[in-house]
Amino acid sequence: MATRDQICATCDQYVALLSKGDSDGIVALYDPNARVEDPVGSEPKNGHDAIREFYSGVSEVSLTATRLGPVTVVGHEAAFQFRIDIPIGANGTDTMSMVATDVMTFDQAGKIIAMKAYADPDARPGS
Amino acid sequence: MATRDQICATCDQYVALLSKGDSDGIVALYDPNARVEDPVGSEPKNGHDAIREFYSGVSEVSLTATRLGPVTVVGHEAAFQFRIDIPIGANGTDTMSMVATDVMTFDQAGKIIAMKAYADPDARPGS
Repeated sequence: MATRDQICATCDQYVALLSKGDSDGIVALYDPNARVEDPVGSEPKNGHDAIREFYSGVSEVSLTATRLGPVTVVGHEAAFQFRIDIPIGANGTDTMSMVATDVMTFDQAGKIIAMKAYADPDARPGS
Repeated sequence: MATRDQICATCDQYVALLSKGDSDGIVALYDPNARVEDPVGSEPKNGHDAIREFYSGVSEVSLTATRLGPVTVVGHEAAFQFRIDIPIGANGTDTMSMVATDVMTFDQAGKIIAMKAYADPDARPGS
């Protein structure tokens, strides 16, 4: 059973790897049979191959992901919020910001076995 | 279909009614056939009667609930974090604080039809 500290560390790794654009690193956080529903309600991606394809674009975008509140953990499930900032405009001086709440289930080995993302382009970090 | 603004307003009402200890007000936010799983993984409470009983203790505790980050909404689903502060000790000058991430699904009328709470006594507001 993964501990609370391990689960929190994996959530923080996920956020850091998003900022780095490291899709291979992100895929390695997932169990080979994991299911990703991002955004919630969309067709789930099942397994490492589909998940790798889903995250393949992350290296092409210069985004910064930053956790907002704490990771809340109950047993082997966790939920947390993070903001995403993406430079836009001709010289990249403007920033598009949004917030996502991610809900993750972990397996015995501490890998993510299921993820649902409540990613809301209309949610502003300070609102 | 409930709009994003309506869903956000209901989430804020939920947090405000928790602070007021108004269990009847909270029950009124739920669809009569709603399902509450709080904390996630526990036996769900189904329907208004079971939900009313679940929240009946809220008027006996002097708690303050405060939303942290924004409400993130995707379609008719929402997720948000809030801190709970409860005065403790002989003279109530100390405070116990924790954080919950609540995930809610809304019906056509804008009532909560399902709720899961990732309520973590070990999650500190500033961590």
